Amino acid sequence: MAAELLVTKQRFETPELRTIGGATIRNVAVGYETYGELNAARDNAILVAHYFSGTSHAAGRYRPEDPLPGYWDAIIGPGKAVDTDKYFVISSDTLVNFNANDPDVVTTGPASPDPATGKPYGLSFPAVAIADFVRVQRALVDSLGVRKLRAVMGPSMGGLQTFEWAASYPDLVERTIPVIAAPNFNGWLTAWLSMWVQPIRLDPDWRGGAYAADAPPSAGLEAAMRAMTLHALHSAWTEGAGGRAVAEGADPADIASTPFAIEKALEQAARLRAPFADANHMLYLARANQTYIPGAGAGATSVAEGLARIKAPTLLIYAPDDLVFLPEWVEAAADILRGHGVPVETATLSGPYGHYNGIMRIAEAAERIAHFLARPI
Amino acid sequence: MAAELLVTKQRFETPELRTIGGATIRNVAVGYETYGELNAARDNAILVAHYFSGTSHAAGRYRPEDPLPGYWDAIIGPGKAVDTDKYFVISSDTLVNFNANDPDVVTTGPASPDPATGKPYGLSFPAVAIADFVRVQRALVDSLGVRKLRAVMGPSMGGLQTFEWAASYPDLVERTIPVIAAPNFNGWLTAWLSMWVQPIRLDPDWRGGAYAADAPPSAGLEAAMRAMTLHALHSAWTEGAGGRAVAEGADPADIASTPFAIEKALEQAARLRAPFADANHMLYLARANQTYIPGAGAGATSVAEGLARIKAPTLLIYAPDDLVFLPEWVEAAADILRGHGVPVETATLSGPYGHYNGIMRIAEAAERIAHFLARPI
Repeated sequence: MAAELLVTKQRFETPELRTIGGATIRNVAVGYETYGELNAARDNAILVAHYFSGTSHAAGRYRPEDPLPGYWDAIIGPGKAVDTDKYFVISSDTLVNFNANDPDVVTTGPASPDPATGKPYGLSFPAVAIADFVRVQRALVDSLGVRKLRAVMGPSMGGLQTFEWAASYPDLVERTIPVIAAPNFNGWLTAWLSMWVQPIRLDPDWRGGAYAADAPPSAGLEAAMRAMTLHALHSAWTEGAGGRAVAEGADPADIASTPFAIEKALEQAARLRAPFADANHMLYLARANQTYIPGAGAGATSVAEGLARIKAPTLLIYAPDDLVFLPEWVEAAADILRGHGVPVETATLSGPYGHYNGIMRIAEAAERIAHFLARPI
Repeated sequence: MAAELLVTKQRFETPELRTIGGATIRNVAVGYETYGELNAARDNAILVAHYFSGTSHAAGRYRPEDPLPGYWDAIIGPGKAVDTDKYFVISSDTLVNFNANDPDVVTTGPASPDPATGKPYGLSFPAVAIADFVRVQRALVDSLGVRKLRAVMGPSMGGLQTFEWAASYPDLVERTIPVIAAPNFNGWLTAWLSMWVQPIRLDPDWRGGAYAADAPPSAGLEAAMRAMTLHALHSAWTEGAGGRAVAEGADPADIASTPFAIEKALEQAARLRAPFADANHMLYLARANQTYIPGAGAGATSVAEGLARIKAPTLLIYAPDDLVFLPEWVEAAADILRGHGVPVETATLSGPYGHYNGIMRIAEAAERIAHFLARPI
C-alpha cells in the first residue's frame, strides 16, 4: 500500500512583480506545495497549475484527518500516474487566488494589504493576467533550483497557464498536459465569465469593491459561485443531486423561495465555500481569463502568435460534454499545434460532471499521463 | 407577392380562473391575435403558443412601418407553411407574460391590479402553472367557436404548452408541433431557470416583490435577461457579436467595468427590452416552467403519466446544439411517445443561435411543417 502523502503549505515571496500590463506589485507572496524530491540532475520537476476556484492543494493531505485530499490526488502521489517516487511536483497558488480567505492559501490580490496604505487594495490592485501568474511561478521554480520542467500540467485555468508556460518559455518546458482547457476560446467564454460574476456587482455590499473584510458581498459572491458551478457541470449530474424534486418542507407555490432540491444543493455548496473566497478576487480572476493570450508573457498579442511559439509535445485531455471550454476549441487547438509541427495527442474523460470531469474523473487518463511523462522526448 | 399581414391585438376576458393549484383569479384578461379566417366547418384552426420571453405577436405587423414582424413570421402568413389562406391561426399571450409593460401585450399576473385592493398583486398573486396558461387558451378557443384544433404548435415554453394541450385535451388536438421543447427535461433546466432569475432577488429594488411600478428592480431584471439570452444562444453566435474584442474606448484593466464587445451586445439587448418586462412576472414564469408536468390540467402528477395521455401525431422540431432543452431529452420524448403508439416525426434546425434557432431559423422546417399540417390524420 502506498504511503499517505502528507504535505505542507509553503510560502514563496518576491519583493516586486512587474506585470505584463506594466504595473509593479510589491511584496508578492504565493503559497505552494511540493510532492516528491528534486533529483541530483534537477531534471524531474513537474509544475501543476490550478483551476479558477482551486488552490495549490493538488495532492495529499495537510493532516491525516483531512476529509479530502488535493483535487488531483487520484493521479499525483507515490506510485500514481504523476509518480512522486520519480518526480518532484511543484504546485503553486496563483495571484488573486479565489480562496483568499482560506488559511491554507497564500496569495496576493485586491484583498491583500497595500504596502503603501496598510489597507486592502480593493480595485486599486492592478489588473493581472494569466501570464503574470506564470511569471510568479517562474520565479518560484527558479528559487527551487529547477532549470527545466519535465512537464507543466493543470486543469481549466491551470491548462491556460500550461499553454502560457509552453508559449512564453518554450526552452524550459519539455512537455505539457493541458486538461479541459483551450487557449483559443471565443467570445462565448468571455460572455460566460461575465455572467458568472455579474451578481457580485449587483450586491450593494460590494460597494464598488471597497467592502470591509467583515462585511463582504456574500449574497452576490454565493450567487456567482452557483452560476459558475452549474455552468461547469452538465445535466447528468443533476440526476444524483435531486433532479426536479422539491426539497422536503419546501413550497414551490412560494415564489420568493428556492424550493427545489437542486437549488439547495447548489446553495449549500456555495455557502460552505464562500467564507473562504473573496468577491474582488473572483472579479480579477474572471478578467485574467477573459484577456488571456498564450505567450503574452513573451509579448504575444494574439492567440495565433502565441500558439506558433509552442514547441513542447502536448497531451490534450478534455471532456466531450464540457460547456466551459468547448471540445471543438480543444480539437481546433490540437490541429493548429500539429500544423506547427508540435506532436499532439488527445485523450477524453467521461462522467456526469461536464467540465468538472477534468477534476473528478482525471483517473481515467492516468495511464495516458504516466506514459506521456515517461516517454523520452 | 403575398400581401403584408396586418394584425390587431385583441383582448380576451374571463371573469374567473380556477388554477390547477386551487386558487381563484378574478378578472383574467389576455391578449391574442388571429391570422386568416375560421372556415364554415370550423376545422381549420391552429393554436400557436409563445416562448418564455415572447408574446402573442407570432406573425405580421401591427403597423406597416413596424421594423420587425412577429417572431414566426417566416412560417405564418399567406402562402407560407402555416398558410393563413387555409388556416385560422390563434396566438395568445400567456398569464404572467414576460412583457407585462408592452402596450401590445395583455396579461394577468403579479403586476396586475388585485381587484380586492386596486394595487398590484405582487407576490400575493398565486403561483400559476403552464397548465393554467392552457386553461385560459382553452376558454379563448371556445369563445371563438372553435371545437377542434387542427394543430397546436409553439417554440420552447410554447412547446411545453403544446404538450399540455395534447395531454390534457387529447380529443381536441389533431396534431402537435412542439419546437425546441422537451416535456421530460431534468433538474438541469430547473437549476438553470433559477440561475437566470437569481439576480432579481439580489437587487435591493426588488423589495420582496413589492416594488412600485416606477421603481422596478431594473438592474436585477437586466442581469437576469442577459443570463437567459446567453444560455439560449451558443458559441457560434458570439463570432458575429464581437467575439473576444474589447469595445471601442473600453479598458479591460478597469475591473469595475464590462469592457468586452460581447458584454455590450448583451447589455444593450437587455436594456432595450427591460422597460417592457416585469421582474415578478419573470419569477412566476420561471416557476411555471420548473413545476411543469404535461397533462397537469387533467390531473397528471408525473411526466410519464402525462405523456401516456397523448394521442396526437407529433412533429418534434429541435436544434442539436440547444443548451436549454437538450436534444437528448427531445429524442427520449420521441421514443416514449412512439412507445405509446403515437406517430412521431422529428426535424432539426441548424444555425448559430443554439436554442434560439427554434425562432431565428424556423424557416428551415417550413416544408416539413406545411406537409405535416396538410396530411390527413
